[in-house]
Amino acid sequence: MAGSTLGTILKVTTWGESHGKGIGVVVDGCPAGLPLAEEDIQAYLDRRKPGQSRFTTKRQEADRVEILSGVFEGKTTGTPISMAVMNTDQRSRDYGNIMEVYRPGHADYTFDEKYGFRDYRGGGRSSGRETIGRVAAGAIAARLLKSLGITVCAYTKAVGPYEADPAQFDPEEMYRNRLYMPDAGAAALAEAYLDRMMSECNSVGGVVECVIDGLPAGVGDPVFEKYDASLAKAILSIGAVKGFEIGDGFQAAKSVGSENNDAFRMDESGKIKKETNHAGGILGGISDGSRVVLRAAFKPTPSIAQQQKTVTRGMEETDIAIKGRHDPIIVPRAVVVVEAMAALTTADLLLLSMTSRLDRIQGFFGVHSAEHL
Amino acid sequence: MAGSTLGTILKVTTWGESHGKGIGVVVDGCPAGLPLAEEDIQAYLDRRKPGQSRFTTKRQEADRVEILSGVFEGKTTGTPISMAVMNTDQRSRDYGNIMEVYRPGHADYTFDEKYGFRDYRGGGRSSGRETIGRVAAGAIAARLLKSLGITVCAYTKAVGPYEADPAQFDPEEMYRNRLYMPDAGAAALAEAYLDRMMSECNSVGGVVECVIDGLPAGVGDPVFEKYDASLAKAILSIGAVKGFEIGDGFQAAKSVGSENNDAFRMDESGKIKKETNHAGGILGGISDGSRVVLRAAFKPTPSIAQQQKTVTRGMEETDIAIKGRHDPIIVPRAVVVVEAMAALTTADLLLLSMTSRLDRIQGFFGVHSAEHL
Amino acid sequence: MAGSTLGTILKVTTWGESHGKGIGVVVDGCPAGLPLAEEDIQAYLDRRKPGQSRFTTKRQEADRVEILSGVFEGKTTGTPISMAVMNTDQRSRDYGNIMEVYRPGHADYTFDEKYGFRDYRGGGRSSGRETIGRVAAGAIAARLLKSLGITVCAYTKAVGPYEADPAQFDPEEMYRNRLYMPDAGAAALAEAYLDRMMSECNSVGGVVECVIDGLPAGVGDPVFEKYDASLAKAILSIGAVKGFEIGDGFQAAKSVGSENNDAFRMDESGKIKKETNHAGGILGGISDGSRVVLRAAFKPTPSIAQQQKTVTRGMEETDIAIKGRHDPIIVPRAVVVVEAMAALTTADLLLLSMTSRLDRIQGFFGVHSAEHL
Amino acid sequence: MAGSTLGTILKVTTWGESHGKGIGVVVDGCPAGLPLAEEDIQAYLDRRKPGQSRFTTKRQEADRVEILSGVFEGKTTGTPISMAVMNTDQRSRDYGNIMEVYRPGHADYTFDEKYGFRDYRGGGRSSGRETIGRVAAGAIAARLLKSLGITVCAYTKAVGPYEADPAQFDPEEMYRNRLYMPDAGAAALAEAYLDRMMSECNSVGGVVECVIDGLPAGVGDPVFEKYDASLAKAILSIGAVKGFEIGDGFQAAKSVGSENNDAFRMDESGKIKKETNHAGGILGGISDGSRVVLRAAFKPTPSIAQQQKTVTRGMEETDIAIKGRHDPIIVPRAVVVVEAMAALTTADLLLLSMTSRLDRIQGFFGVHSAEHL
Repeated sequence: MAGSTLGTILKVTTWGESHGKGIGVVVDGCPAGLPLAEEDIQAYLDRRKPGQSRFTTKRQEADRVEILSGVFEGKTTGTPISMAVMNTDQRSRDYGNIMEVYRPGHADYTFDEKYGFRDYRGGGRSSGRETIGRVAAGAIAARLLKSLGITVCAYTKAVGPYEADPAQFDPEEMYRNRLYMPDAGAAALAEAYLDRMMSECNSVGGVVECVIDGLPAGVGDPVFEKYDASLAKAILSIGAVKGFEIGDGFQAAKSVGSENNDAFRMDESGKIKKETNHAGGILGGISDGSRVVLRAAFKPTPSIAQQQKTVTRGMEETDIAIKGRHDPIIVPRAVVVVEAMAALTTADLLLLSMTSRLDRIQGFFGVHSAEHL
Repeated sequence: MAGSTLGTILKVTTWGESHGKGIGVVVDGCPAGLPLAEEDIQAYLDRRKPGQSRFTTKRQEADRVEILSGVFEGKTTGTPISMAVMNTDQRSRDYGNIMEVYRPGHADYTFDEKYGFRDYRGGGRSSGRETIGRVAAGAIAARLLKSLGITVCAYTKAVGPYEADPAQFDPEEMYRNRLYMPDAGAAALAEAYLDRMMSECNSVGGVVECVIDGLPAGVGDPVFEKYDASLAKAILSIGAVKGFEIGDGFQAAKSVGSENNDAFRMDESGKIKKETNHAGGILGGISDGSRVVLRAAFKPTPSIAQQQKTVTRGMEETDIAIKGRHDPIIVPRAVVVVEAMAALTTADLLLLSMTSRLDRIQGFFGVHSAEHL
Repeated sequence: MAGSTLGTILKVTTWGESHGKGIGVVVDGCPAGLPLAEEDIQAYLDRRKPGQSRFTTKRQEADRVEILSGVFEGKTTGTPISMAVMNTDQRSRDYGNIMEVYRPGHADYTFDEKYGFRDYRGGGRSSGRETIGRVAAGAIAARLLKSLGITVCAYTKAVGPYEADPAQFDPEEMYRNRLYMPDAGAAALAEAYLDRMMSECNSVGGVVECVIDGLPAGVGDPVFEKYDASLAKAILSIGAVKGFEIGDGFQAAKSVGSENNDAFRMDESGKIKKETNHAGGILGGISDGSRVVLRAAFKPTPSIAQQQKTVTRGMEETDIAIKGRHDPIIVPRAVVVVEAMAALTTADLLLLSMTSRLDRIQGFFGVHSAEHL
Repeated sequence: MAGSTLGTILKVTTWGESHGKGIGVVVDGCPAGLPLAEEDIQAYLDRRKPGQSRFTTKRQEADRVEILSGVFEGKTTGTPISMAVMNTDQRSRDYGNIMEVYRPGHADYTFDEKYGFRDYRGGGRSSGRETIGRVAAGAIAARLLKSLGITVCAYTKAVGPYEADPAQFDPEEMYRNRLYMPDAGAAALAEAYLDRMMSECNSVGGVVECVIDGLPAGVGDPVFEKYDASLAKAILSIGAVKGFEIGDGFQAAKSVGSENNDAFRMDESGKIKKETNHAGGILGGISDGSRVVLRAAFKPTPSIAQQQKTVTRGMEETDIAIKGRHDPIIVPRAVVVVEAMAALTTADLLLLSMTSRLDRIQGFFGVHSAEHL
């Protein structure tokens, strides 16, 4: 089936393989009138670019995005925004054993089972490069949200066993160290740990946290289209994600009701607020007006230079050591991908939420409620 | 928007409020020819029925399901299967302060924000009774999977801090104790803990684990429609779920590549197997032929008899203690709901996977591959 | 696949067979706050009821609708509205040769090919009774549109070769004669023709026309989700419809540009209007603010008492004469079904149109356009 | 909303404006293993190319398609196939009054109402050039169908009042004359008529007919997803189409049951056939195994050089004569667009039809029906 399209109102379709002609995305349903330039997209793409630190691959690609449609005189037109990043570095290579041997922890085997064969060049469609399309689309969603006063911000919460301490949270720090970790102390420990694992030809997992501020209450639907359920799908659709939490997540399973329930109070401006936010900003699948907090668990990079047991396409047992340079951790480059997926989901559900109440619909169309029935 | 429909091929639509006329579901797209009787559905519904132990509400409802369409002469016809459980106990009640006061941890406030008002009787649409429709639908999905040799089985993994030990896993035990916990020792500790929390007017969270066996490789799609992403959405759409894991989940974030990667080997029958299953049966979003393992974290029941701080619809601060009898833990009754949602998602994606390869499509339609092009 | 659900925001799912336990529909996504009672639905259902004239079947069914969910204290709650009409007349019958012989012009053969077997009682799922669910849903959509000042009105345009003359259009007349034909003269000729065809054990086709007034410009999307395309699908999904026209339809194919183009002018109130309406209210797939006009061509009722050549399930040639009482023409009872389908499509696209412009979205959420970017 | 995506299994997303950087399409869900080269696509695109006769625009564009993803070593991989035609001729022009004046019969006014402003260069998104993406996608669908023994063929049925006579049907002729009309006599009359209209600065409408052969019975679903309903939507989504017919279409409305019903008979090979095909190959929304026949009515090209009355964006009445060279008739170039849309719809529903019967699903997965239940 088709699995490359996401969203109901704001519909995103990505395409492209790691070592094909390019990678791209079509964003359909973006409202007309949003100021948008290639630089707005590029700023997001640059955050997932390789080669930024000793913990990311050395492959230097410009990854320049081009907007091919849907923007006219600096503003979105309401029609599909097509964006592409052409692969500049396509010289033929020796894919050697990757072509015939299934890499453990990768999708090589499952692609072959599903499709009968696969584009084996650098991971093909299951490559991390597929996220270029997501990030480009997410940049638009984030900009749309920003135009409505809503911000989405992700960062590295944990690297292996080293976790950022909320008490040490420093928003500036996350742009200072190359792990996007908002706690300088934890980042230092994490970097040392990464260096050690790299020297052992090993790789590391971690956790990304994402917060959404400024969202009004009422976004998300009660049953299958709960806001947190849609976020979960969007986040789990990122390769290497193995777990998702909203609010206290798995910790809530160990809590008790009297602690986990968030008390409602009135704030000084006469609005309802919650004293705590164990719920992570969502009650019954619907945003409650407080900060939305989610986390994604990433497994260690499956490509490691250590010898591993595996089998060939021809069903013979063999060993493999993945050559080439691979990130020892996916997390720092995945931060912006989490942000993109959260922004896309939030923007889509926010637009959908406009149709939930007749009084507001009548207001939108300039009808007085008593007028016609 | 409409949020009560799930699935692409096997499409499920639930309806009904806690204290309305009834609860029901329409299952559209079930293949024709599946033997199906009301008893097949009822067996699943009975597993989520209240009043089965001292840990579930005392409300005694028959919850008898009726099949209204889509089954003829004992088999599904391929047309929509409508099922309903009529509420037998609808006498008018005193909903007292629930009508005017927002219960902490519930969807009362977010419903009012989203819709302007709500059916305040017993939680209305956000009541746990909504899951009756899911379980009835899930029973059909499970039966469809079984007809293809695939089984789905969920159980209680943890109650508060007490976790079932995999080394003590006893499949019979889960039907013996009323917590659906497959480890008698952990179940005994959990029951003692629950008794203590009940005596303190408090409630407890927990974790449900679900395993799927017999599924062929190739189910799920590479990008947004990954099998694990769809499972995550289905599971998070259950009220009170705050976290989701596939395979090692959050533990994978603390692991290293050399441990987390599952080595491929050949089994004695000449088929590919994995030595371990940290991945939980899914690689790159596509099933790999091994057991699928997922977990859901449930928060403590928000309804507790303790005094809690909250506000009224009229925006005045107040206190509330939830009257009536409420389950001190949702988990045991949610086990079958997790099973239902996993079965629905798996069945839908399994049917979708039939269209991924031209050679198999040609085989299905009786065409020889070289014939027409 | 699932084929019983329609719509994006306003999502409708019908269920039920002709001679099963009942017929029903779930309407999900209706905005909260719409005043709604069973009588509002019943009024629409009564218009498709059999037994109203000598041209409709004599089967007398009450067809009383019951609202099972989604309405509380007289208003829609925003959650799924489940409605059912239980079949009161289910005594077992002799379906005789219908079970084994394929009726020409019916779906018996194609159902057997698709599903392997079928519910042969009275047409099962392909019976005209399936439209009960559509009409019940359409009644809600029509009410929603009315609350926004938009009306949908269908009537019989032609019966066999007898066509209502626009010059004789009399809106009262359509409720006076039992053909819903707004031209008394044409109706008289049509009735005489129908009497003659009935006496010959034959049946007749016809055309339904539907007009939509009060719709603002901007509804529908430019490419695949054109308003007229969605209307076409909705109308063709009614059994027995073989053709669809918007505006001048097939007549436009014989016209020339200078005649077919509608000139724009300013009206006295300073708004843009069109001098003519050959386009039928839609330009480029988007409503232009003028009256929407569509037509549906219905084939003659396939059930006729004349002897017809056919084959059995066992693939033997045979003859069949359809016993029982059947409408000699579908059109008068289909008028309200066309109205329902047009209303459902229009309401869905109207709600979707709210998200096309950022300035209006910002207004909806109370944001000043210059505020956040 | 997003309106540029079509299909459930085979999902097509088009993008691009007339005078932007390019036009393209992403085809997701095409089964893996289909041999595909750029020439296969180009052959279809060449059929809609301008400049082929004196009845099409003189604008000479190469319109070379490039496949950017989803094909590897000459075969589809099952992942999204991205295709683009870059606009080679983008020099800035004088769009003069088109920018400020609403062209009658065009979407200028409705775009402005919907989006607040528009890309006015050559029609922008509502330009006929948008169909490049459809045709490229349709070429793949047609190739997929061909690999299963199914062919789709469209041709010009009528030009203004001049209609091809079925008795004169000559399949070779349709490629000989530049009107794609399979009747040399009618084509000659049509050409003379077109010359006359061109000399009068006028334009002409017409009808395209499309036949689908080799399709098995069982494609399409009973209620909202009827095969003919989906075809209708696909065809009406083509700009300038004002009417749709399946089989006898509007003629059926004037027929009687005894004539319109198609008798079933057995053919010499022991298969069921119909003696006639008034139904156009579809009964109850499901293909019946005979030829599918549909027709689309196209309005005259709205761009004419005659003076027309209209208004400006600033709401002042004015006159307009459309400069430049425009096809006096859309039909010959639209033939391949109709073919493309019919192929896309048919391929999608054919794939969906694989899931309707449990026995066939069990066969697909190698399960014996009695094995597991």
